[in-house]
Amino acid sequence: MFPKNQMGKAAMLLVLSGEGAEQDRLLKTLDESGFAVALGRVGTMDSQKIVAAVETAAKKHGIISSERYREEHALYHAIMEALMGVGRGVVSFGAQLRTVGLRFSIVRGRPYAAPDEGEWIAVAFYGTIGAPVKGWEHEALGFGINHI
Amino acid sequence: MFPKNQMGKAAMLLVLSGEGAEQDRLLKTLDESGFAVALGRVGTMDSQKIVAAVETAAKKHGIISSERYREEHALYHAIMEALMGVGRGVVSFGAQLRTVGLRFSIVRGRPYAAPDEGEWIAVAFYGTIGAPVKGWEHEALGFGINHI
Amino acid sequence: MFPKNQMGKAAMLLVLSGEGAEQDRLLKTLDESGFAVALGRVGTMDSQKIVAAVETAAKKHGIISSERYREEHALYHAIMEALMGVGRGVVSFGAQLRTVGLRFSIVRGRPYAAPDEGEWIAVAFYGTIGAPVKGWEHEALGFGINHI
Amino acid sequence: MFPKNQMGKAAMLLVLSGEGAEQDRLLKTLDESGFAVALGRVGTMDSQKIVAAVETAAKKHGIISSERYREEHALYHAIMEALMGVGRGVVSFGAQLRTVGLRFSIVRGRPYAAPDEGEWIAVAFYGTIGAPVKGWEHEALGFGINHI
Amino acid sequence: MFPKNQMGKAAMLLVLSGEGAEQDRLLKTLDESGFAVALGRVGTMDSQKIVAAVETAAKKHGIISSERYREEHALYHAIMEALMGVGRGVVSFGAQLRTVGLRFSIVRGRPYAAPDEGEWIAVAFYGTIGAPVKGWEHEALGFGINHI
Amino acid sequence: MFPKNQMGKAAMLLVLSGEGAEQDRLLKTLDESGFAVALGRVGTMDSQKIVAAVETAAKKHGIISSERYREEHALYHAIMEALMGVGRGVVSFGAQLRTVGLRFSIVRGRPYAAPDEGEWIAVAFYGTIGAPVKGWEHEALGFGINHI
Repeated sequence: MFPKNQMGKAAMLLVLSGEGAEQDRLLKTLDESGFAVALGRVGTMDSQKIVAAVETAAKKHGIISSERYREEHALYHAIMEALMGVGRGVVSFGAQLRTVGLRFSIVRGRPYAAPDEGEWIAVAFYGTIGAPVKGWEHEALGFGINHI
Repeated sequence: MFPKNQMGKAAMLLVLSGEGAEQDRLLKTLDESGFAVALGRVGTMDSQKIVAAVETAAKKHGIISSERYREEHALYHAIMEALMGVGRGVVSFGAQLRTVGLRFSIVRGRPYAAPDEGEWIAVAFYGTIGAPVKGWEHEALGFGINHI
Repeated sequence: MFPKNQMGKAAMLLVLSGEGAEQDRLLKTLDESGFAVALGRVGTMDSQKIVAAVETAAKKHGIISSERYREEHALYHAIMEALMGVGRGVVSFGAQLRTVGLRFSIVRGRPYAAPDEGEWIAVAFYGTIGAPVKGWEHEALGFGINHI
Repeated sequence: MFPKNQMGKAAMLLVLSGEGAEQDRLLKTLDESGFAVALGRVGTMDSQKIVAAVETAAKKHGIISSERYREEHALYHAIMEALMGVGRGVVSFGAQLRTVGLRFSIVRGRPYAAPDEGEWIAVAFYGTIGAPVKGWEHEALGFGINHI
Repeated sequence: MFPKNQMGKAAMLLVLSGEGAEQDRLLKTLDESGFAVALGRVGTMDSQKIVAAVETAAKKHGIISSERYREEHALYHAIMEALMGVGRGVVSFGAQLRTVGLRFSIVRGRPYAAPDEGEWIAVAFYGTIGAPVKGWEHEALGFGINHI
Repeated sequence: MFPKNQMGKAAMLLVLSGEGAEQDRLLKTLDESGFAVALGRVGTMDSQKIVAAVETAAKKHGIISSERYREEHALYHAIMEALMGVGRGVVSFGAQLRTVGLRFSIVRGRPYAAPDEGEWIAVAFYGTIGAPVKGWEHEALGFGINHI
């Protein structure tokens, strides 16, 4: 079982590991531990496309309901917080002439022992940020978590 | 060998893994791959203590020179960027009545194949942020990288 | 008479009340108390359209002179401050995939008893911010004030 | 009945009206409409005291549970958003040599018709911000809302 | 005569030149051109001391009236804007373990040909920002201007 | 010889002086003192064009290598810091309906006596920011410096 109170760590490990046996093992453990997971990728200079990509993946994989604003609101703020880490204080990229290539994960579940603490949703990004020139980039990552 | 261009991933994996066999293996691989590493912990409401803790650990373990402002300047901006991820756009905590408990790693080395790209320094944080009440906290992480 | 030192409260009440008898009464009292008022609406994902809508309304209703940069400068900073409340620290919306629907008021007058304190200008917004999906939104408001 | 989807407007009207018959009528209507309300005041240069004052009032009046981090987390982010409006992009005051005197309201309830959208919590501030000199201040207000 | 529309340039040249013949010549020209000027210095980790130092100098040299909040409000926002340049997006220093040593100038006058555009006030800072270690610092500067 | 530790002052003086004899003298002294310099101009509402203009000028005049990401990274962060001064906490302009007209300078060299402190790069902007209306603008400036 994956430790309940480390769902954020799980979200980050999923994007760090990339596709392969390690990620598959982690996905299996998270599934057995009651966490729902969605994964995706996005490359853009346009921050609103990142928001759209994560929200679309979350709805498509049933992580959040397509019928409930409340869940979108929770996810949206988790995305914004994670983008603050990627952009280090800025949540737009093209206006600063930067482009990003990111893997992302969304994890939903119960990180606290007390049932009353309910469900939370975490978003993690890992990839690169840089000039619009191939190879002129460095690693970037971000993480956000919210009650849902 | 650890992939050159994933020193940021290495820094984050070090803080996610915590003390133990996994971290030891990673430390050994990074050492063999030519990366210098320092690890530490800090718990505080006072963001300047986080800066001081990371800088002290970096000097003590010889990651940066105690004689050269240039290196402190590179590390300082990497710390600030990583704190932006922890605080999600804010780099102070006490003024917002939040307390943090963080593990940190500092990794120095050459992430690019071209020798001209020189050395870079990465800082990663992983831990919790929350109210000054035991258990009223959630995970937080941050990452910054800079040329040195 | 409306209390001099509550022109900001007046600006906010105007946007909260919406069109109708209550707003009309307030407009009459403000007029009798020597305050100039303009009202308007704007719905957009594009923050520069909000700035343009407020500035156009202010000029059209003679709240600021179309001939004087000084007055536009005072109004501009009041608008920026009010948008900080709407966006809660961010003054752009489309880049974050958010859309806003806002009523706004502009009030100009003398909030201080001492004649030397001169005229001030207040801007208030009230409406909704949310995803570009009907009904997926919550209330938002903002307020700025500046000497003119 | 107070319109469900205007609980933020209600929160702001409560702080704008101040103590008296108007506020009492509004409190009664909100109570009948199923909203829970707490009111308070705080004057300080120290932003963490504002957070503490609002959280204490919310717990004391049973607006949030003292046993549940989830609820404190929802309230905390609503407070931070509301402080962004007061400080217009900054959530600390003393470091900028400003002092604030604020009334605040906390409203909890169901702003959406669909039962699935659940409970939300709103925080509103109204008062003054200025130099630490009596009368050298202008009005300020802020508003935040979050699902709970 | 100093060109009217370059009072900001004048403010910056005053802090760049430091004490001496060049500064004296500039002060004389500004005086003859109808600009009022105050100069000062401040070294601290505490941003509120910078605000206090500039405001005190402005009042002592009669650049702003000690009796009028309006003028303090205009100066205060010019100081905040200038500190944004010094801190590059942050207006506090000690919380980031940085110390500053700054010369400052305050210039008041009429930068526009049209008399209606009235008086404006500019603040300029030049000096160093760095670690609390002698010599571990680099240059920093900032500039703000406002109508008064 | 220009004082080593004032390369930032040099960068700012270059943009303040504008074309002419004074700038020529300064350019000559900087050249003799071992500093490399590039100058340029940009007018736009689009912050990414400012970044592109400065980077292009730096490469064209050989201030940074076109082959080395490391150097572009150093310059990029210096530009971002300088734009923080121009926008006073915001690094985009069009979204706020502002347009800028800026002269810029880039200076590269050794500001510290100790050879180990190596090369640094400074960026300075001076010009105007304002409404998209001729003459409705005021002065703005910004400065950033980084090790390279």
